[in-house]
Amino acid sequence: MPEHKIFSLGDFPLECGLVLRKAQLAYQVYGELNSRKDNAILLCSWYSGDHTGYEFLIREGKCFDPTKYCVIGVNMFTNGLSSSPSTTPIPMNGPHFPATTIRDNVRAQHALVQSLGIESLALVSGYSMGAQQCFQWAVSYPDMVERIAPWCGAARTTPHTHVFIEGFTSALRADAAWNHGHYAQPPATGVRAMARVYAGWGLSQAWYREELFKQLGHPSVEDFLVYFWEHFFLLCDANNLLAQAKTWQDHNVGDSPGFDGDWRKALATISAKAMVMPGQTDLYFPPEDSQAETDCMPNAVYRPIPSIWGHLAGIGMNPEDNDFIDAAVRECLAS
Amino acid sequence: MPEHKIFSLGDFPLECGLVLRKAQLAYQVYGELNSRKDNAILLCSWYSGDHTGYEFLIREGKCFDPTKYCVIGVNMFTNGLSSSPSTTPIPMNGPHFPATTIRDNVRAQHALVQSLGIESLALVSGYSMGAQQCFQWAVSYPDMVERIAPWCGAARTTPHTHVFIEGFTSALRADAAWNHGHYAQPPATGVRAMARVYAGWGLSQAWYREELFKQLGHPSVEDFLVYFWEHFFLLCDANNLLAQAKTWQDHNVGDSPGFDGDWRKALATISAKAMVMPGQTDLYFPPEDSQAETDCMPNAVYRPIPSIWGHLAGIGMNPEDNDFIDAAVRECLAS
Repeated sequence: MPEHKIFSLGDFPLECGLVLRKAQLAYQVYGELNSRKDNAILLCSWYSGDHTGYEFLIREGKCFDPTKYCVIGVNMFTNGLSSSPSTTPIPMNGPHFPATTIRDNVRAQHALVQSLGIESLALVSGYSMGAQQCFQWAVSYPDMVERIAPWCGAARTTPHTHVFIEGFTSALRADAAWNHGHYAQPPATGVRAMARVYAGWGLSQAWYREELFKQLGHPSVEDFLVYFWEHFFLLCDANNLLAQAKTWQDHNVGDSPGFDGDWRKALATISAKAMVMPGQTDLYFPPEDSQAETDCMPNAVYRPIPSIWGHLAGIGMNPEDNDFIDAAVRECLAS
Repeated sequence: MPEHKIFSLGDFPLECGLVLRKAQLAYQVYGELNSRKDNAILLCSWYSGDHTGYEFLIREGKCFDPTKYCVIGVNMFTNGLSSSPSTTPIPMNGPHFPATTIRDNVRAQHALVQSLGIESLALVSGYSMGAQQCFQWAVSYPDMVERIAPWCGAARTTPHTHVFIEGFTSALRADAAWNHGHYAQPPATGVRAMARVYAGWGLSQAWYREELFKQLGHPSVEDFLVYFWEHFFLLCDANNLLAQAKTWQDHNVGDSPGFDGDWRKALATISAKAMVMPGQTDLYFPPEDSQAETDCMPNAVYRPIPSIWGHLAGIGMNPEDNDFIDAAVRECLAS
């Protein structure tokens, strides 16, 4: 795959009131736009992930088939590729990077999509925080979004998910080396603690009970904690992790203009066909929340992923879950 | 209630190979032993709790009725009342306090019970880590335990519970002020982080969804995090918290002599009548684990607590859950 592309947003006003100068979205395009310009799919990145995370489904014969679709994988602000604490120069560098919302991201993505000559999206899809962006797209740009296929995510951050995020971010911030974001060396102790907290939430009790970490090549829980979780988060920048967690924590689709914070009202306006796929054993985006959200949407199918892989059912690691998502997305695209 | 009593164990050898000098168990007795000496109930303390935690059920007309039973509330090592890092002089003070196991606790409690002239226990009961002690009592002293009534706990620490404990203890340890246990001032930042991690696990997603923190007088999640969770753990000593977490993390009833680590084999030997009450929505002692354990026990009833209070269904805060436990324990005592 070639390097990702950069879309320059120029001076980009944010919901928080600050202007992000020389704002950038990193993205990648797989496949080509057809002459009718009706084969575009937008994929929105997940927490601490990037556009490459979806490549397990961007293959010929899979739902995001690049020989049929023009697939645009876009990166959220704060993920280290699009404008982020780690990439932004003074005075908005590091801990001074302004708060970016899911709606800021979606508005920036809208500008990107327009710049590509696309006026209609056959599908907006994504996992986890990517799912949050799907719902927001359908609310913010109803005339432009034909379908959404969000999985393992929700349209708003519930009180429990808020507390979950508060837990793992507090673990990172407990490290004095973090120094309120003014670190010279990465606050590795805090990042490792965050990773250990995250590990309990990422996969279900049943997954651990059946010791599926052994399937992944980890002979023990401790090996899984160090070589999977700590390793992954140690590759991330701490300010990026905290900024993106804040984006997540603060999201509510109901805060879109005209809904007075009511996510049900906002979801009721979604005319796009939707395939909503929570993970059956997801501990921080539990299926009950997706069910309640789907019930508000006039054109939506509720299709839980029958898996014990918890939240990670959606991340591309378990072939059966991948096949389930692939089939459901294809069904949505065919509708 | 009068002050608690102290039972001196003398020099008490531990499973880890060290000897705890002048070991002490703190306990309280409610009610009196009858002439047949067949009305004794032992209550084992929970993580970061003490004997007073059970007083919501130690009342006339309740299951632990002190007018009918001789109720002994005993404190685990490391809880700050029995021998603990915070109470032990050099050279086994603070971080030098030796590892104590659930079996060490049960053996110490056995000595206490014998010293009180009790040769048979009508019931051993307890919540959470208290439940771990119930199962261990029934395995270690089968001729002495007529009944057990463990709730919101398990006979062994599963891989997922291990990871959960690893998460919240890592958050505490991420604070450099902890200094491997050699602190002059409490590592408050780490303890607060631990509290925030714990908050997500203690109650169910549904509990937060329905905003039941408001029932407890907290107008917001943040108020609940600070005034309930941080406040509670800030009153504890960090070394005590970590030592008791280690006791929890390492427990497996199958490590009792003769079972080669097999908890199923150990549970199969339990002749006591048992009333096993997991919380239906407990996130770190999920009911499936209790069901699997109960299935191994020849004389056990599986009776999940139908509550959205998660693990805290068992802690005495929700009147409906209290009544459920009370009724089930009374049923067990009547059998």
